[in-house]
Amino acid sequence: MVFDMSPKVVDELVQEKAKGSSSLSDMITKLEKPRALWLMVPAGVVEQTIDSLVPHLEEGDILIDGGNSYYIDDIQHAKNLKEKGIHFVDVGTSGGVWGLERGYCMMIGGEDEVVKHLDPIFATLAPGIGDIPRTAGREHLGGTAEQGYLHCGPNGAGHFVKMVHNGIEYGLMAAYAEGLGILRSANVGKQTHASDAETTPLRDPDHYKYDLDLREITEVWRRGSVIASWLLDLTAGSLVKDPSLAQFGGRVSDSGEGRWTIKAAIDEAVPVPVLSAALYSRFSSRGEAEYENKLLSAMRFGFGGHLEKAEGK
Amino acid sequence: MVFDMSPKVVDELVQEKAKGSSSLSDMITKLEKPRALWLMVPAGVVEQTIDSLVPHLEEGDILIDGGNSYYIDDIQHAKNLKEKGIHFVDVGTSGGVWGLERGYCMMIGGEDEVVKHLDPIFATLAPGIGDIPRTAGREHLGGTAEQGYLHCGPNGAGHFVKMVHNGIEYGLMAAYAEGLGILRSANVGKQTHASDAETTPLRDPDHYKYDLDLREITEVWRRGSVIASWLLDLTAGSLVKDPSLAQFGGRVSDSGEGRWTIKAAIDEAVPVPVLSAALYSRFSSRGEAEYENKLLSAMRFGFGGHLEKAEGK
Amino acid sequence: MVFDMSPKVVDELVQEKAKGSSSLSDMITKLEKPRALWLMVPAGVVEQTIDSLVPHLEEGDILIDGGNSYYIDDIQHAKNLKEKGIHFVDVGTSGGVWGLERGYCMMIGGEDEVVKHLDPIFATLAPGIGDIPRTAGREHLGGTAEQGYLHCGPNGAGHFVKMVHNGIEYGLMAAYAEGLGILRSANVGKQTHASDAETTPLRDPDHYKYDLDLREITEVWRRGSVIASWLLDLTAGSLVKDPSLAQFGGRVSDSGEGRWTIKAAIDEAVPVPVLSAALYSRFSSRGEAEYENKLLSAMRFGFGGHLEKAEGK
Amino acid sequence: MVFDMSPKVVDELVQEKAKGSSSLSDMITKLEKPRALWLMVPAGVVEQTIDSLVPHLEEGDILIDGGNSYYIDDIQHAKNLKEKGIHFVDVGTSGGVWGLERGYCMMIGGEDEVVKHLDPIFATLAPGIGDIPRTAGREHLGGTAEQGYLHCGPNGAGHFVKMVHNGIEYGLMAAYAEGLGILRSANVGKQTHASDAETTPLRDPDHYKYDLDLREITEVWRRGSVIASWLLDLTAGSLVKDPSLAQFGGRVSDSGEGRWTIKAAIDEAVPVPVLSAALYSRFSSRGEAEYENKLLSAMRFGFGGHLEKAEGK
Repeated sequence: MVFDMSPKVVDELVQEKAKGSSSLSDMITKLEKPRALWLMVPAGVVEQTIDSLVPHLEEGDILIDGGNSYYIDDIQHAKNLKEKGIHFVDVGTSGGVWGLERGYCMMIGGEDEVVKHLDPIFATLAPGIGDIPRTAGREHLGGTAEQGYLHCGPNGAGHFVKMVHNGIEYGLMAAYAEGLGILRSANVGKQTHASDAETTPLRDPDHYKYDLDLREITEVWRRGSVIASWLLDLTAGSLVKDPSLAQFGGRVSDSGEGRWTIKAAIDEAVPVPVLSAALYSRFSSRGEAEYENKLLSAMRFGFGGHLEKAEGK
Repeated sequence: MVFDMSPKVVDELVQEKAKGSSSLSDMITKLEKPRALWLMVPAGVVEQTIDSLVPHLEEGDILIDGGNSYYIDDIQHAKNLKEKGIHFVDVGTSGGVWGLERGYCMMIGGEDEVVKHLDPIFATLAPGIGDIPRTAGREHLGGTAEQGYLHCGPNGAGHFVKMVHNGIEYGLMAAYAEGLGILRSANVGKQTHASDAETTPLRDPDHYKYDLDLREITEVWRRGSVIASWLLDLTAGSLVKDPSLAQFGGRVSDSGEGRWTIKAAIDEAVPVPVLSAALYSRFSSRGEAEYENKLLSAMRFGFGGHLEKAEGK
Repeated sequence: MVFDMSPKVVDELVQEKAKGSSSLSDMITKLEKPRALWLMVPAGVVEQTIDSLVPHLEEGDILIDGGNSYYIDDIQHAKNLKEKGIHFVDVGTSGGVWGLERGYCMMIGGEDEVVKHLDPIFATLAPGIGDIPRTAGREHLGGTAEQGYLHCGPNGAGHFVKMVHNGIEYGLMAAYAEGLGILRSANVGKQTHASDAETTPLRDPDHYKYDLDLREITEVWRRGSVIASWLLDLTAGSLVKDPSLAQFGGRVSDSGEGRWTIKAAIDEAVPVPVLSAALYSRFSSRGEAEYENKLLSAMRFGFGGHLEKAEGK
Repeated sequence: MVFDMSPKVVDELVQEKAKGSSSLSDMITKLEKPRALWLMVPAGVVEQTIDSLVPHLEEGDILIDGGNSYYIDDIQHAKNLKEKGIHFVDVGTSGGVWGLERGYCMMIGGEDEVVKHLDPIFATLAPGIGDIPRTAGREHLGGTAEQGYLHCGPNGAGHFVKMVHNGIEYGLMAAYAEGLGILRSANVGKQTHASDAETTPLRDPDHYKYDLDLREITEVWRRGSVIASWLLDLTAGSLVKDPSLAQFGGRVSDSGEGRWTIKAAIDEAVPVPVLSAALYSRFSSRGEAEYENKLLSAMRFGFGGHLEKAEGK
C-alpha cells in the first residue's frame, strides 16, 4: 500500500503491483492492524509527516523512518509516540542510487520485539548474501548482517550507525581525492615558477616531471590493490567519462551526517582528525574560509609587509 | 632463474619449477642476454644489491626493482645505470600477503621500449580482468590497466604511484578506525563521569547509550553500502576473530611511503589534511606526542593552576 | 556584599573590606534594590544556584554569571528569568590565576540598558589601559575595549566570545607544543634506529644532530620575535623550572569550551582544522585513540601480515 | 663596510655612518683580516653570492648568512667552506619590518669559537633586555638569550630554530584566523537558508544571532587575556584600519619555512597536526584544492546523483 503527494508516482507504483491510496488517511484505513508505515521523506519534513499521521494511528501501530534523520530526533520521536502506544523504528540505508541494481544495506534501531515483527520486510528488501564472499569465521555466528540488514540497538541506533557510516564516507572520499590530487600535480617540475620572496622554490624540479593518467591509475588500483573499493570503482568510472571533470565546479555539499558524526565524536571524546579534516575541506570548497584567509594575509602584511600575490601563482 | 641468500628458499622455488642458482654471478651467467633481473629486496638493501650486480651486467641488461623503494632513489639509480647502458625499471605492487590468492596490481616506471619488452612478464604476473566488473565506458579504451598492470611513466613513476597508493591507504584505514571508534564509545552515556572543573560534562547522556556490535556492523556494511571496500572486508574479518582486538597493543608502524607522500604533496603545494592526519595518528600511537602533551599540561598549570588528572578519567 | 558556602572564605573577604553575609537569602536581603548579584560558581552548579536564588529575587534584579558557562545555557537562563522580570548578564573572563597581578579582561553579554547600568562594576574590575601600548588608529574610536571589558552583544554573547577565546587558546598552545616537539627531537640523527620493514629509515641522519636547549630558545623568542606571547612567557617560565617537565604525565584535560567551539564552527560551516586538531591531540593524550590504533594494527596484520613492534621503537 | 647591488642603497647607508664599497671585491679588500661578512640576500641567491665571494676570501674569514635559508643548505655550505678554511655562521632573525622599532631576536648556528668571536656584533644588534619582564627563575642562568640572541648549536642550528619558529607562526596565525572566523559567522541564524537535501539545516538558528565586532573583541583580548600576543596586536591593528579587510583577497603565500618544518617533523616522526593544517589552509586559499574538490563532487554524483549547488549557498 503506497502513498505519495504526487498521484503520478502512486500510479507508477501501482503498475509495479503495489496497491495505491489517495491520502495518508486513506492509506491508513486500508492497512491491516497493527499497521506498519514506512516513511521515506526528507529529514526536514519527518516531523510534520509524523504529526499528520499520528491522529489516524492506534496503539500497537509502527512508524518506520527510513530516511536520513538525525538519531537525536529519533530518540525524541520514539519517546513521544510511546506515550500513545505507537512504536517507532529508525532505518538507515546505504547504497545510493545504485541500490536497486547492487543492493543496499539497512541499519535498524528500535525495540527488540518490534524489529523482530518487521523482520520479513527487512529480509525482503535486503540484498541477501549474494555473491559477496563470506567473511572467514562467520559460518557459525548466525545473525542477519550477512543478509544486508542489522538490528543495531534501541531507538536511534539505526540512524546513529548510518550517520557514522557517512562520516567514514567523507573520510574515504577525501583520502582518494587528496591522493589523486598529488598524482595530478606530479608534473609541477615542468612548470616555470615565479622566483620571489612570496613563492617557495621547488628544490628538485626533476622529481616532479610525471604526467600521470589518473583514469588508468584508478583502473589498475581496482585490480587487486589494497585500496580497492566501491568508491574507487565510481571514481574510475567518473574519470573514464571525463578526466578533467570539467562538469564539476568543486563546490562540495555536505548533508548533515558528516557534521553530526563530528559532534558525536566530540561528546564521546574520541579523536577524529581525519573525519574532521574531510568535513572542513568541503566547507572550504564552498568558500567558507575566505575571511580566515584574509585575516592571514592581513597579519602577514602587518608583520612583514607581505603583499598578496595575484592569481596564477 | 632464482637466487636468494638462503639456499633453502632457492630449493623451495626449484620444486615449484624455477631454475635455481647458487650466487648472484651464477644467476647472471645462466641468464640469456639481454638479461632482465627482478630484485625483490627490502628498500634498505637495494643500493648494495645493485652495486654488487652491476659488475656482472652488460649494456642492454635490465634491472627491475619490484620492492618498496623511494621513487627518488629510482631516479638516481636509473641515471647511474644509464651511464653503463643498463636499463632500470621500477615496479610498485599492491595486494599484500593475499596477492597469490586474490591477485595484485603493478605500477611500472621506465623507458617505453624497455617496459614494452618486459610486457610478457607483467602480463603473466598480473591478475587479469578476472571477475571484477568492468568500468562502464572502458570498452574502447584499450591499455593494460584492466589486466592489473600499468606503465605509469618514466623512471620512478611506478614507485611514485605506489607511494601515493599507500598514502591513500593510510587515510582510508584511519577513516574506518575513527568511525568505528565513535561507534564503540556510543555507550559513554551509561558510564559515570567525574564532575569537576577538569572534566567536560556530557550534556545529554541519553544520546549515548548504545552498545553497538562492531563485528556485525562492519559485516552489514559489506553488503551494498557506499563504504564497502577490501579494507572493510579485512576489518570485518579481524573483528570476527576477536572484537576486542586484544592481540594488538595499538602501536602502529609506518613504513615510509606515507611520509614520502606528504613530502611530495608539500613540494607540489597540494593540501592533504586527511593523509597527514592519518600519518600523525600513527606517530602518536607510538608515544611520539608525549613531550608535546607535557608542554600543554605545563602551560595549563602555568596560566590556570590546572593539575593533571590521574589515569582512569 | 559577599557569600560563600564556606564561612571562612566570607571572613577572609570581610577582612579585605567586603561586607559578609551568612546565607544567600541574608545576602539578598542586605542588598539595595534593584540588586545585582554576581555568581562565580562552576558551570555544573549554575543551574541550581539560580534556582535557589530566584525565589528571593524581584522584578528588576540582575543576575550575573561570571563563570565558564555554555552560552546556550545563558540563552535559556535569560529567557526563563525574563518571564519573572529578572535580568541576566553573562560575563566571560580571561586571565587565569594571574588575573589579580596582571589584570584580566571581561566579555559581556546582555541587554544594553542592563549592561550600561552595571558599567561601574566592570570599569572597576577591568585592568584599565595600563602600560599596554595602544593599537594605532584607536584614538578616536572610544568604547571600553581598551579598558579591558566589552559588551559583546545580547545574552550569551559574552560566553560565546569567551568560548571561542578558549578554542583559540587550544590552537595556540598546540602550535607551540608541536614546534617545540620538533626542536626537541632534532637530535634523532644521533640515535641508532632499528633497520627493518616496520621502521622508516632516516635518510639523512646528518640533518638531525642538534641538541637544542628549549629553555634558552623560548627565552630568545620572547625578545622581539613574531611569535612572542603570554603563553610563550609561561612556557619559558615552565622550562626554566624543569626543562624535562618531569612533573607532568602528558594527560591533557579539556574543560568544555574547546569542544563547544568546534560544535559552533560546524553549525556555522566555518572550517577549523587547526582548532579541531588541537582538541583531538588532548583526547589522544588521554588514551582515547587506543581502540582506533588497535584497529589500524589489525588491518595492517590483515593485509600485510605486519606484526606490531614492541615499545622502544 | 657595506655593499649592495644598488649604489643608491650604499649611499644611503654611508649617510648613516657606514663605510661604503663599490663591489664585493672592493668591500673585501677594505676589511681587516680575519674578515666577517654578513650576507643579507634572498635564499635563492645565497649560493651564487657565496660562489662569487669565495675567490676573494682567505683562511680564517667568516661568512654569515643572515637571511631565510634552508638549514640543510647551511650544512652543505659550511662543509664546502671548511675545506678552504673559511668559517660559516647561519643567523635566523625574527621581528619583521618592525625590527628597527621593536627589536628582533637572532638564532645562531656555527662553531663555538667563531660565534664567540662574533659576539660583539650580535650583542650590538640584539634588542637587549629592555622592558620585557624577566622570566622568573632566570636570574642565575646567565647566557645571552635574555639579550635577544642565542647560539643554538652547530652549523644550521640557527636556521633550523628559525624554521620551526615560522612553522609555529603559521599555526598561531591560523588559530586566531579560525577563531575569528567563528565569531564573524555567529549571525548565521539570522540568514535564511536553502532547504533541500544538499544543505544541512541549522537546527537552532536562535543560537547564532550575534553580530560581533571583531575590532573590539581583538582589542579587549589584548588586555590581560590568556591569548594576548604580538600577532593579536597586529590583528587588532589591521581590524582598526578596516574590519572588512577588503584590501585582501585571501590568497595566502607561504615562503618555505612552514613546508620545511613539516618535512623535519615527518623525518623525526613528531606529530604536527596543527602546523600541517595551518600550511594546508594556505595552499587551499590559493585554489590548490580545486581538483580534489571536483573529485569529491564527481564521487557524490556517482553514488548519489547529487548535483553541485551554484554559488551563494
